[in-house]
Amino acid sequence: MSRYDFSTQRLFIDAPLNEGARIVMDKGQTNYLVNVLRMREGDPVLIFNGRDGEWQATLAEAGRKGAVLTADALSREQTPASSLHYLFAPIKQARLDYMVQKAVEMGVGHIRPVITRRTQVARLNDDRLRANAIEAAEQCGVLSIPEIEAPEQLASLLARWPKDEPERRIIFCDEDETGADPISILRALPRGPLAVLIGPEGGFSPEERETLHALPFVTAIPLGPRILRADTAAVAALALVQAVAGDWVES
Amino acid sequence: MSRYDFSTQRLFIDAPLNEGARIVMDKGQTNYLVNVLRMREGDPVLIFNGRDGEWQATLAEAGRKGAVLTADALSREQTPASSLHYLFAPIKQARLDYMVQKAVEMGVGHIRPVITRRTQVARLNDDRLRANAIEAAEQCGVLSIPEIEAPEQLASLLARWPKDEPERRIIFCDEDETGADPISILRALPRGPLAVLIGPEGGFSPEERETLHALPFVTAIPLGPRILRADTAAVAALALVQAVAGDWVES
Repeated sequence: MSRYDFSTQRLFIDAPLNEGARIVMDKGQTNYLVNVLRMREGDPVLIFNGRDGEWQATLAEAGRKGAVLTADALSREQTPASSLHYLFAPIKQARLDYMVQKAVEMGVGHIRPVITRRTQVARLNDDRLRANAIEAAEQCGVLSIPEIEAPEQLASLLARWPKDEPERRIIFCDEDETGADPISILRALPRGPLAVLIGPEGGFSPEERETLHALPFVTAIPLGPRILRADTAAVAALALVQAVAGDWVES
Repeated sequence: MSRYDFSTQRLFIDAPLNEGARIVMDKGQTNYLVNVLRMREGDPVLIFNGRDGEWQATLAEAGRKGAVLTADALSREQTPASSLHYLFAPIKQARLDYMVQKAVEMGVGHIRPVITRRTQVARLNDDRLRANAIEAAEQCGVLSIPEIEAPEQLASLLARWPKDEPERRIIFCDEDETGADPISILRALPRGPLAVLIGPEGGFSPEERETLHALPFVTAIPLGPRILRADTAAVAALALVQAVAGDWVES
């Protein structure tokens, strides 16, 4: 796979894209382009909307009334969104921003907050989650913005899982299990869609661990002998899953 | 490996530890224990100094003149420091804090800043690097604080390497190489000490990549099709290295 030129700014645009399309920016977007990114008329930019691929575009007008971009040529064909789901117990805001950004960089397609026994954050700012996902997608080169789902209780999620996601296996990162080889465990799984589940700071409760270990659609993997913060565990687990059974290896 | 009780606060103490040792805290430490952690006389704490194992201790005196801890019983024997080296191009401060914390969580033993062509940060705050390493060690349960070395130019580091570190292989995370299987590459390496090298935001220059690829003691691994921020790449690469050839698997 060849890389695009990542010195060019990438922007997510929620509008149809095709050759010659003129996209009129709203006030906030215009401010961002002209005052934050300091773009001038004629400057190049890469744009994508999650559906129509990535386009080389030009800032055609930079006037105060609203900047206008023109889509000049397709630079990359649209690729399917990632089928990897990321289930995580929300954490406090600064680290949550990081967690969402990192999950996008690591290639997840669905971001699903899960409320566990020890989860200390109950309310989520949807706009902020989405803004973080978009920023990470712009920066890391993916062509789709992950779906962000509403928070759900772990117990009800697990109860509905066999009906809603009969094919999808949950990879559960179990802090209290060490010594086993996570790569061998992942290699031995049948091929199929996956979800990675990361617990809150402080881990899952003993009852939650027992429930998870007993479920046939859940596989536990250890993440080494040290205690990892939730955002670290997320990147580590997603790296292993992508490298063994995901899109890090062309198949 | 059994886990210690991680609800108890852990503290790094730079003093000899043995049964009955009385450790008098300085003003800053006393303030931290009494005012930040709100510890009271008789409260338990786990302490370690990187040499004498981890000790169950008690806050024996919480007076204003200086708190006193007593070491009551060894809770974990000292383990050898990690032999994994972490070479990284420094990044801006907030993400640098994260990068150092995460490297410690991922089990590196030596933190070695490397100045590359595109490195944008030339000066490092040693005290802050060390404070971040200590905080992460306290939190993640390791018994040694990683060594933090002075920044070095990539070219001179590579020139000295065969003489200084004849046995140690550098795993170089190459953003521009995709498609190969990083796990197979790591599995095929002869056993021996390793260093993981992470480039700056923007990656290595073409000349640097060429140099690295040509060196017999350097092995390139890809980290998937997306562009990862430097701190994300660090955790991802360290996860693969620890899972394949490091301490995530008891051998």
